[in-house]
Amino acid sequence: MPAMKAHVWVMPKRTVLDPQGQAIQHALSSLGFHNVREVRQGKFFVLDLDLTTREAAENLVERLSREVLTNPVIEEFRYEIVD
Amino acid sequence: MPAMKAHVWVMPKRTVLDPQGQAIQHALSSLGFHNVREVRQGKFFVLDLDLTTREAAENLVERLSREVLTNPVIEEFRYEIVD
Repeated sequence: MPAMKAHVWVMPKRTVLDPQGQAIQHALSSLGFHNVREVRQGKFFVLDLDLTTREAAENLVERLSREVLTNPVIEEFRYEIVD
Repeated sequence: MPAMKAHVWVMPKRTVLDPQGQAIQHALSSLGFHNVREVRQGKFFVLDLDLTTREAAENLVERLSREVLTNPVIEEFRYEIVD
């Protein structure tokens, strides 16, 4: 079966503090990387799908991103389907 | 000062097991998402830079990705500069 891939980005919402990103920004600054004003950290997923159509892949990835990969209170997601 | 942004992806190397990704694949399968054959999970960073040239941004991001964001034994990175 021809495989499709999906990429999913899950990021803290703009309105939510990102303590991990802040910690990294501070670490970078203390290590001499002074030109990094802000860091935000998210998750990135690469999914291999056993599906043949882009429409089926979009339906599946939209659902699993919303229901499993993302905490909707503090995170948001976007995805792309790669043939 | 005009700001530049960078996106950095840090992923487990192809040759390295990704237990987080495997756990998510199993969770998805047990939740009924049966068409996801493999999941790999990495990190995604958005950096705001106080720099004015693309060349300076590339130098900085290459260095901090290699020296701070990535564990070179088990991870690899790529990045893009966004004006």
